[in-house]
Amino acid sequence: MSVAIKKAVVLLSGGLDSATVLAMAREQGFTAYTLAVSYGQRHSAEVLASARVAQTLGSVQHQVMQVNLHELGGSALTDRSIAVPEAPTTGIPVTYVPARNTLFLSLALGWAEVVGAYDIFIGVNAVDYSGYPDCRPEFVAAFEQLAQLATKAGVEGQRFKIHTPLISLSKAQIVTEGRRLGVDYAQTVSCYQADDEGRACNRCDSCRLRRAGFEAAGMVDPTRYQTAV
Amino acid sequence: MSVAIKKAVVLLSGGLDSATVLAMAREQGFTAYTLAVSYGQRHSAEVLASARVAQTLGSVQHQVMQVNLHELGGSALTDRSIAVPEAPTTGIPVTYVPARNTLFLSLALGWAEVVGAYDIFIGVNAVDYSGYPDCRPEFVAAFEQLAQLATKAGVEGQRFKIHTPLISLSKAQIVTEGRRLGVDYAQTVSCYQADDEGRACNRCDSCRLRRAGFEAAGMVDPTRYQTAV
Repeated sequence: MSVAIKKAVVLLSGGLDSATVLAMAREQGFTAYTLAVSYGQRHSAEVLASARVAQTLGSVQHQVMQVNLHELGGSALTDRSIAVPEAPTTGIPVTYVPARNTLFLSLALGWAEVVGAYDIFIGVNAVDYSGYPDCRPEFVAAFEQLAQLATKAGVEGQRFKIHTPLISLSKAQIVTEGRRLGVDYAQTVSCYQADDEGRACNRCDSCRLRRAGFEAAGMVDPTRYQTAV
Repeated sequence: MSVAIKKAVVLLSGGLDSATVLAMAREQGFTAYTLAVSYGQRHSAEVLASARVAQTLGSVQHQVMQVNLHELGGSALTDRSIAVPEAPTTGIPVTYVPARNTLFLSLALGWAEVVGAYDIFIGVNAVDYSGYPDCRPEFVAAFEQLAQLATKAGVEGQRFKIHTPLISLSKAQIVTEGRRLGVDYAQTVSCYQADDEGRACNRCDSCRLRRAGFEAAGMVDPTRYQTAV
Protein backbone atom coordinates (compact mmCIF):
# COMPACT_ATOMS: atom_id res chain seq x y z
CA MET A 1 0.00 0.00 0.00
CA SER A 2 1.29 3.41 -0.93
CA VAL A 3 0.21 6.47 0.99
CA ALA A 4 0.09 9.82 -0.81
CA ILE A 5 2.42 12.38 0.70
CA LYS A 6 0.99 15.84 1.23
CA LYS A 7 3.83 18.31 0.84
CA ALA A 8 3.81 21.92 1.96
CA VAL A 9 6.27 24.78 1.89
CA VAL A 10 6.22 26.62 5.22
CA LEU A 11 7.72 30.09 5.53
CA LEU A 12 9.68 29.92 8.77
CA SER A 13 11.25 33.11 10.02
CA GLY A 14 12.32 31.69 13.38
CA GLY A 15 9.83 33.87 15.20
CA LEU A 16 6.95 32.82 17.41
CA ASP A 17 4.25 32.97 14.74
CA SER A 18 5.89 30.93 12.01
CA ALA A 19 7.06 28.26 14.50
CA THR A 20 3.43 27.81 15.48
CA VAL A 21 2.40 27.62 11.83
CA LEU A 22 4.94 24.87 11.20
CA ALA A 23 3.55 22.85 14.11
CA MET A 24 0.02 23.35 12.73
CA ALA A 25 1.05 22.23 9.23
CA ARG A 26 2.67 19.13 10.69
CA GLU A 27 -0.45 18.36 12.73
CA GLN A 28 -2.51 18.59 9.53
CA GLY A 29 -0.34 15.83 8.10
CA PHE A 30 1.85 17.85 5.78
CA THR A 31 5.43 16.93 5.02
CA ALA A 32 7.04 20.30 5.60
CA TYR A 33 9.72 22.01 3.50
CA THR A 34 10.72 25.06 5.51
CA LEU A 35 11.98 28.28 3.97
CA ALA A 36 13.73 31.12 5.78
CA VAL A 37 14.61 34.31 3.96
CA SER A 38 17.70 36.20 5.03
CA TYR A 39 17.18 39.68 3.65
CA GLY A 40 19.70 41.76 5.53
CA GLN A 41 17.33 42.24 8.43
CA ARG A 42 18.78 43.50 11.69
CA HIS A 43 17.52 40.44 13.50
CA SER A 44 19.65 37.77 11.79
CA ALA A 45 19.47 35.77 15.03
CA GLU A 46 15.97 34.97 13.80
CA VAL A 47 17.42 33.07 10.85
CA LEU A 48 19.58 30.94 13.16
CA ALA A 49 16.49 30.32 15.27
CA SER A 50 14.63 29.13 12.18
CA ALA A 51 17.09 26.26 11.69
CA ARG A 52 16.65 25.11 15.30
CA VAL A 53 12.87 25.26 15.06
CA ALA A 54 12.88 23.46 11.68
CA GLN A 55 14.82 20.58 13.15
CA THR A 56 12.78 20.31 16.34
CA LEU A 57 9.45 20.34 14.53
CA GLY A 58 10.40 17.82 11.85
CA SER A 59 11.02 19.80 8.66
CA VAL A 60 12.30 17.45 5.95
CA GLN A 61 14.35 20.19 4.31
CA HIS A 62 15.24 23.65 5.55
CA GLN A 63 16.34 26.20 2.98
CA VAL A 64 17.71 29.64 3.70
CA MET A 65 17.31 32.03 0.78
CA GLN A 66 19.56 35.08 0.67
CA VAL A 67 18.28 38.34 -0.83
CA ASN A 68 20.19 41.61 -0.51
CA LEU A 69 17.11 43.70 0.33
CA HIS A 70 19.19 45.93 2.60
CA GLU A 71 20.68 47.46 -0.56
CA LEU A 72 17.24 48.82 -1.38
CA GLY A 73 16.66 50.29 2.10
CA GLY A 74 13.35 51.84 2.99
CA SER A 75 12.66 50.03 6.25
CA ALA A 76 13.87 50.17 9.82
CA LEU A 77 14.37 46.40 9.56
CA THR A 78 16.83 46.58 6.69
CA ASP A 79 18.32 50.08 6.90
CA ARG A 80 20.44 50.85 9.95
CA SER A 81 19.98 54.58 9.42
CA ILE A 82 16.27 54.24 10.38
CA ALA A 83 15.66 53.62 14.10
CA VAL A 84 13.38 50.81 15.27
CA PRO A 85 10.54 52.53 17.19
CA GLU A 86 10.31 51.73 20.89
CA ALA A 87 6.90 53.28 21.52
CA PRO A 88 3.57 52.42 19.86
CA THR A 89 3.00 54.28 16.59
CA THR A 90 -0.09 54.84 14.47
CA GLY A 91 -0.49 53.92 10.81
CA ILE A 92 1.89 51.64 8.94
CA PRO A 93 5.13 51.59 10.94
CA VAL A 94 8.69 52.17 9.70
CA THR A 95 9.39 48.49 10.29
CA TYR A 96 7.28 47.78 7.20
CA VAL A 97 9.57 46.25 4.54
CA PRO A 98 8.31 47.20 1.06
CA ALA A 99 6.72 44.21 -0.70
CA ARG A 100 8.24 41.77 1.80
CA ASN A 101 5.49 39.17 1.92
CA THR A 102 5.07 39.36 -1.86
CA LEU A 103 8.74 38.48 -2.14
CA PHE A 104 8.55 35.74 0.52
CA LEU A 105 5.54 34.13 -1.12
CA SER A 106 7.23 34.34 -4.53
CA LEU A 107 10.21 32.39 -3.22
CA ALA A 108 7.91 29.90 -1.50
CA LEU A 109 5.91 29.49 -4.69
CA GLY A 110 9.02 28.83 -6.76
CA TRP A 111 10.26 26.20 -4.33
CA ALA A 112 6.79 24.66 -4.01
CA GLU A 113 6.68 24.15 -7.73
CA VAL A 114 10.13 22.54 -7.73
CA VAL A 115 9.30 20.03 -4.96
CA GLY A 116 5.74 19.41 -6.13
CA ALA A 117 3.95 21.09 -3.23
CA TYR A 118 0.72 23.01 -3.81
CA ASP A 119 0.21 24.17 -0.24
CA ILE A 120 2.09 27.13 1.21
CA PHE A 121 1.87 28.19 4.85
CA ILE A 122 2.59 31.72 6.05
CA GLY A 123 2.16 33.13 9.54
CA VAL A 124 0.49 36.41 8.70
CA ASN A 125 -1.84 37.77 11.28
CA ALA A 126 -4.49 40.44 10.91
CA VAL A 127 -5.07 41.00 14.63
CA ASP A 128 -1.72 41.82 16.25
CA TYR A 129 -0.28 42.59 12.87
CA SER A 130 1.33 45.97 13.41
CA GLY A 131 -0.56 47.46 10.45
CA TYR A 132 1.30 45.84 7.57
CA PRO A 133 -0.74 45.85 4.31
CA ASP A 134 0.66 42.50 3.20
CA CYS A 135 -0.76 40.67 6.22
CA ARG A 136 -4.40 41.17 5.21
CA PRO A 137 -6.73 38.45 3.88
CA GLU A 138 -7.32 40.37 0.64
CA PHE A 139 -3.59 40.38 -0.04
CA VAL A 140 -3.36 36.64 0.54
CA ALA A 141 -6.35 35.98 -1.73
CA ALA A 142 -4.78 38.08 -4.48
CA PHE A 143 -1.53 36.13 -4.20
CA GLU A 144 -3.37 32.82 -4.44
CA GLN A 145 -4.95 34.00 -7.70
CA LEU A 146 -1.59 35.14 -8.99
CA ALA A 147 -0.03 31.75 -8.19
CA GLN A 148 -2.48 30.01 -10.51
CA LEU A 149 -1.51 32.26 -13.39
CA ALA A 150 2.20 32.53 -12.66
CA THR A 151 3.21 28.89 -12.69
CA LYS A 152 3.52 25.91 -14.97
CA ALA A 153 1.74 23.83 -12.32
CA GLY A 154 -1.13 26.33 -12.18
CA VAL A 155 -1.51 26.35 -15.96
CA GLU A 156 -1.53 22.54 -15.87
CA GLY A 157 -4.47 22.62 -13.46
CA GLN A 158 -2.94 22.32 -9.98
CA ARG A 159 -4.64 24.53 -7.38
CA PHE A 160 -2.26 26.41 -5.10
CA LYS A 161 -3.51 27.14 -1.60
CA ILE A 162 -1.99 29.76 0.69
CA HIS A 163 -2.70 28.71 4.27
CA THR A 164 -2.83 31.45 6.90
CA PRO A 165 -3.89 29.59 10.04
CA LEU A 166 -3.01 32.52 12.33
CA ILE A 167 -4.79 35.21 10.40
CA SER A 168 -7.61 35.76 12.86
CA LEU A 169 -5.94 34.61 16.08
CA SER A 170 -4.75 36.85 18.90
CA LYS A 171 -1.18 36.42 20.11
CA ALA A 172 -2.54 34.71 23.22
CA GLN A 173 -4.47 32.21 21.10
CA ILE A 174 -1.38 31.57 18.99
CA VAL A 175 0.86 30.70 21.94
CA THR A 176 -1.88 28.62 23.54
CA GLU A 177 -2.22 26.60 20.35
CA GLY A 178 1.54 26.32 20.01
CA ARG A 179 1.91 25.02 23.55
CA ARG A 180 -0.70 22.34 22.83
CA LEU A 181 1.36 21.31 19.79
CA GLY A 182 4.62 21.23 21.74
CA VAL A 183 6.34 24.30 20.27
CA ASP A 184 9.38 25.30 22.35
CA TYR A 185 9.12 29.09 22.24
CA ALA A 186 12.51 29.41 23.94
CA GLN A 187 13.93 28.46 20.51
CA THR A 188 12.18 31.32 18.74
CA VAL A 189 13.27 34.93 18.29
CA SER A 190 10.71 37.65 17.53
CA CYS A 191 12.61 40.82 18.45
CA TYR A 192 13.32 43.36 15.69
CA GLN A 193 16.72 44.11 17.19
CA ALA A 194 17.80 40.90 18.91
CA ASP A 195 21.49 40.59 19.71
CA ASP A 196 23.76 37.96 18.18
CA GLU A 197 22.75 35.46 20.88
CA GLY A 198 19.08 35.96 20.00
CA ARG A 199 18.29 37.90 23.20
CA ALA A 200 15.38 40.31 22.81
CA CYS A 201 15.35 44.07 23.42
CA ASN A 202 12.03 44.03 25.29
CA ARG A 203 11.18 47.46 23.84
CA CYS A 204 10.22 47.13 20.15
CA ASP A 205 6.72 46.51 18.79
CA SER A 206 7.40 42.85 18.19
CA CYS A 207 8.68 42.31 21.77
CA ARG A 208 5.65 44.15 23.15
CA LEU A 209 3.15 42.03 21.21
CA ARG A 210 4.92 38.80 22.13
CA ARG A 211 5.18 39.58 25.83
CA ALA A 212 1.52 40.65 25.98
CA GLY A 213 0.56 37.39 24.29
CA PHE A 214 2.22 35.20 26.90
CA GLU A 215 0.69 37.34 29.65
CA ALA A 216 -2.82 37.13 28.19
CA ALA A 217 -2.48 33.37 27.77
CA GLY A 218 -1.32 33.02 31.37
CA MET A 219 1.87 31.34 30.18
CA VAL A 220 5.45 31.74 31.38
CA ASP A 221 7.35 33.93 28.89
CA PRO A 222 10.47 31.93 27.93
CA THR A 223 12.01 34.83 26.00
CA ARG A 224 15.62 35.61 26.82
CA TYR A 225 15.98 39.38 27.19
CA GLN A 226 19.11 41.48 26.88
CA THR A 227 18.46 42.97 30.32
CA ALA A 228 16.47 41.43 33.15
CA VAL A 229 12.75 42.33 32.98
CA MET B 1 9.28 76.47 -12.28
CA SER B 2 9.46 72.96 -10.98
CA VAL B 3 8.79 70.01 -13.24
CA ALA B 4 7.40 66.80 -11.77
CA ILE B 5 9.70 63.85 -12.25
CA LYS B 6 8.09 60.63 -13.45
CA LYS B 7 10.06 57.75 -11.98
CA ALA B 8 9.93 54.16 -13.12
CA VAL B 9 11.64 50.95 -12.11
CA VAL B 10 12.72 49.02 -15.21
CA LEU B 11 13.62 45.32 -14.98
CA LEU B 12 16.77 45.07 -17.06
CA SER B 13 18.20 41.62 -17.64
CA GLY B 14 20.79 42.71 -20.16
CA GLY B 15 18.99 40.90 -22.96
CA LEU B 16 17.55 42.32 -26.14
CA ASP B 17 13.97 42.71 -24.90
CA SER B 18 14.61 44.57 -21.65
CA ALA B 19 17.14 46.91 -23.29
CA THR B 20 14.40 47.91 -25.72
CA VAL B 21 11.96 48.39 -22.85
CA LEU B 22 14.40 50.73 -21.10
CA ALA B 23 14.71 52.83 -24.25
CA MET B 24 10.91 52.96 -24.52
CA ALA B 25 10.51 54.03 -20.87
CA ARG B 26 13.08 56.77 -21.41
CA GLU B 27 11.28 57.96 -24.54
CA GLN B 28 8.04 58.18 -22.54
CA GLY B 29 9.84 60.61 -20.22
CA PHE B 30 10.47 58.35 -17.26
CA THR B 31 13.49 58.71 -15.01
CA ALA B 32 14.62 55.09 -14.98
CA TYR B 33 15.84 53.06 -12.01
CA THR B 34 17.10 49.81 -13.50
CA LEU B 35 17.05 46.50 -11.69
CA ALA B 36 18.92 43.34 -12.69
CA VAL B 37 18.40 40.12 -10.79
CA SER B 38 21.31 37.72 -10.49
CA TYR B 39 19.71 34.40 -9.61
CA GLY B 40 22.42 31.89 -10.33
CA GLN B 41 21.46 31.67 -13.97
CA ARG B 42 23.92 30.09 -16.35
CA HIS B 43 24.06 33.23 -18.41
CA SER B 44 25.66 35.58 -15.88
CA ALA B 45 27.21 37.47 -18.79
CA GLU B 46 23.70 38.88 -19.14
CA VAL B 47 24.05 40.63 -15.78
CA LEU B 48 27.29 42.31 -16.87
CA ALA B 49 25.53 43.34 -20.06
CA SER B 50 22.74 44.93 -18.01
CA ALA B 51 25.20 47.37 -16.43
CA ARG B 52 26.54 48.45 -19.83
CA VAL B 53 23.04 48.92 -21.23
CA ALA B 54 21.89 50.83 -18.11
CA GLN B 55 24.71 53.30 -18.51
CA THR B 56 24.31 53.77 -22.25
CA LEU B 57 20.56 54.33 -22.03
CA GLY B 58 20.67 56.77 -19.11
CA SER B 59 19.55 54.84 -16.04
CA VAL B 60 19.91 57.06 -12.94
CA GLN B 61 20.60 54.07 -10.69
CA HIS B 62 21.37 50.48 -11.57
CA GLN B 63 20.84 47.89 -8.87
CA VAL B 64 21.82 44.23 -9.06
CA MET B 65 19.84 42.04 -6.67
CA GLN B 66 21.31 38.67 -5.73
CA VAL B 67 19.00 35.73 -5.04
CA ASN B 68 20.31 32.17 -4.66
CA LEU B 69 17.59 30.58 -6.78
CA HIS B 70 20.04 27.96 -8.05
CA GLU B 71 19.77 26.34 -4.61
CA LEU B 72 16.13 25.56 -5.37
CA GLY B 73 16.88 24.09 -8.82
CA GLY B 74 14.04 23.04 -11.09
CA SER B 75 15.11 24.82 -14.28
CA ALA B 76 17.68 24.36 -17.00
CA LEU B 77 18.63 28.02 -16.42
CA THR B 78 19.58 27.54 -12.78
CA ASP B 79 20.44 23.85 -12.47
CA ARG B 80 23.49 22.63 -14.36
CA SER B 81 22.25 19.05 -14.21
CA ILE B 82 19.41 19.96 -16.64
CA ALA B 83 20.55 20.53 -20.23
CA VAL B 84 19.45 23.63 -22.16
CA PRO B 85 17.47 22.32 -25.16
CA GLU B 86 18.94 23.02 -28.57
CA ALA B 87 15.92 22.02 -30.66
CA PRO B 88 12.39 23.44 -30.56
CA THR B 89 10.19 21.80 -27.89
CA THR B 90 6.45 21.80 -27.29
CA GLY B 91 4.69 22.91 -24.11
CA ILE B 92 6.39 24.89 -21.34
CA PRO B 93 10.15 24.34 -21.79
CA VAL B 94 12.68 23.25 -19.15
CA THR B 95 14.16 26.75 -19.26
CA TYR B 96 11.08 27.90 -17.32
CA VAL B 97 12.24 29.14 -13.88
CA PRO B 98 9.49 28.53 -11.31
CA ALA B 99 7.80 31.79 -10.28
CA ARG B 100 10.62 33.86 -11.80
CA ASN B 101 8.64 36.86 -13.00
CA THR B 102 6.63 36.90 -9.77
CA LEU B 103 9.91 37.17 -7.91
CA PHE B 104 11.33 39.81 -10.30
CA LEU B 105 8.20 41.95 -10.04
CA SER B 106 8.23 41.59 -6.23
CA LEU B 107 11.75 42.98 -6.09
CA ALA B 108 10.84 45.75 -8.53
CA LEU B 109 7.75 46.59 -6.48
CA GLY B 110 9.75 46.81 -3.26
CA TRP B 111 12.32 49.12 -4.83
CA ALA B 112 9.62 51.18 -6.55
CA GLU B 113 8.02 51.84 -3.21
CA VAL B 114 11.35 52.88 -1.69
CA VAL B 115 12.19 55.38 -4.46
CA GLY B 116 8.61 56.61 -4.89
CA ALA B 117 7.99 55.12 -8.33
CA TYR B 118 4.56 53.77 -9.25
CA ASP B 119 5.44 52.61 -12.75
CA ILE B 120 7.25 49.33 -13.36
CA PHE B 121 8.42 48.17 -16.79
CA ILE B 122 9.02 44.54 -17.69
CA GLY B 123 9.90 43.09 -21.09
CA VAL B 124 7.53 40.15 -21.16
CA ASN B 125 6.32 39.10 -24.54
CA ALA B 126 3.38 36.90 -25.43
CA VAL B 127 4.34 36.33 -29.07
CA ASP B 128 7.86 34.89 -29.15
CA TYR B 129 7.58 34.01 -25.49
CA SER B 130 8.71 30.38 -25.42
CA GLY B 131 5.53 29.33 -23.58
CA TYR B 132 6.22 30.75 -20.13
CA PRO B 133 3.03 31.20 -18.06
CA ASP B 134 4.34 34.32 -16.33
CA CYS B 135 4.66 36.24 -19.60
CA ARG B 136 0.91 36.37 -20.26
CA PRO B 137 -1.29 39.48 -19.96
CA GLU B 138 -3.51 37.80 -17.33
CA PHE B 139 -0.48 37.20 -15.12
CA VAL B 140 0.58 40.84 -15.42
CA ALA B 141 -2.95 42.06 -14.62
CA ALA B 142 -3.06 39.84 -11.52
CA PHE B 143 0.28 41.22 -10.32
CA GLU B 144 -0.93 44.77 -10.78
CA GLN B 145 -3.92 44.01 -8.56
CA LEU B 146 -1.66 42.39 -5.99
CA ALA B 147 0.63 45.44 -5.93
CA GLN B 148 -2.27 47.64 -4.81
CA LEU B 149 -2.99 45.36 -1.87
CA ALA B 150 0.59 44.48 -0.96
CA THR B 151 2.06 47.90 -0.38
CA LYS B 152 1.85 50.88 1.92
CA ALA B 153 1.73 53.11 -1.17
CA GLY B 154 -1.17 51.09 -2.58
CA VAL B 155 -3.12 51.29 0.68
CA GLU B 156 -2.49 55.02 0.71
CA GLY B 157 -4.11 55.34 -2.73
CA GLN B 158 -1.23 55.26 -5.22
CA ARG B 159 -1.98 53.27 -8.36
CA PHE B 160 0.80 50.96 -9.49
CA LYS B 161 1.07 50.31 -13.19
CA ILE B 162 2.97 47.40 -14.71
CA HIS B 163 4.03 48.42 -18.23
CA THR B 164 4.59 45.63 -20.75
CA PRO B 165 5.29 47.53 -23.98
CA LEU B 166 6.58 44.42 -25.79
CA ILE B 167 3.74 42.11 -24.90
CA SER B 168 2.18 41.94 -28.35
CA LEU B 169 5.22 42.70 -30.52
CA SER B 170 7.12 40.20 -32.62
CA LYS B 171 10.88 40.00 -32.19
CA ALA B 172 11.27 41.79 -35.55
CA GLN B 173 9.04 44.64 -34.34
CA ILE B 174 11.00 44.85 -31.08
CA VAL B 175 14.39 45.24 -32.76
CA THR B 176 12.96 47.69 -35.31
CA GLU B 177 11.62 49.84 -32.49
CA GLY B 178 14.89 49.52 -30.57
CA ARG B 179 16.92 50.60 -33.57
CA ARG B 180 14.73 53.69 -33.93
CA LEU B 181 15.44 54.50 -30.28
CA GLY B 182 19.18 53.98 -30.64
CA VAL B 183 19.60 50.74 -28.70
CA ASP B 184 23.01 49.19 -29.31
CA TYR B 185 22.13 45.50 -29.46
CA ALA B 186 25.81 44.56 -29.58
CA GLN B 187 25.78 45.40 -25.85
CA THR B 188 23.02 42.92 -25.08
CA VAL B 189 23.21 39.19 -24.35
CA SER B 190 20.18 36.95 -24.85
CA CYS B 191 21.74 33.47 -24.99
CA TYR B 192 20.79 30.97 -22.27
CA GLN B 193 24.33 29.64 -22.22
CA ALA B 194 26.54 32.57 -23.20
CA ASP B 195 30.22 32.23 -22.36
CA ASP B 196 32.03 34.54 -19.92
CA GLU B 197 32.66 37.07 -22.68
CA GLY B 198 28.94 37.18 -23.47
CA ARG B 199 29.27 35.28 -26.75
CA ALA B 200 26.13 33.40 -27.74
CA CYS B 201 25.78 29.65 -28.43
CA ASN B 202 23.62 30.16 -31.54
CA ARG B 203 21.70 26.96 -30.70
CA CYS B 204 19.32 27.59 -27.78
CA ASP B 205 15.71 28.81 -28.01
CA SER B 206 16.66 32.32 -27.06
CA CYS B 207 19.40 32.53 -29.72
CA ARG B 208 17.02 31.16 -32.32
CA LEU B 209 14.31 33.73 -31.57
CA ARG B 210 16.79 36.57 -31.52
CA ARG B 211 18.46 35.64 -34.80
CA ALA B 212 15.10 35.18 -36.52
CA GLY B 213 14.04 38.61 -35.26
CA PHE B 214 16.98 40.41 -36.86
CA GLU B 215 16.44 38.45 -40.07
CA ALA B 216 12.73 39.26 -40.24
CA ALA B 217 13.47 42.94 -39.57
CA GLY B 218 16.08 42.97 -42.31
CA MET B 219 18.70 44.16 -39.82
CA VAL B 220 22.32 43.12 -39.40
CA ASP B 221 22.59 40.76 -36.41
CA PRO B 222 25.30 42.25 -34.15
CA THR B 223 25.36 39.21 -31.86
CA ARG B 224 28.80 37.82 -31.09
CA TYR B 225 28.68 34.05 -31.43
CA GLN B 226 31.02 31.47 -29.89
CA THR B 227 31.66 29.99 -33.31
CA ALA B 228 31.33 31.69 -36.68
CA VAL B 229 27.82 31.41 -38.12
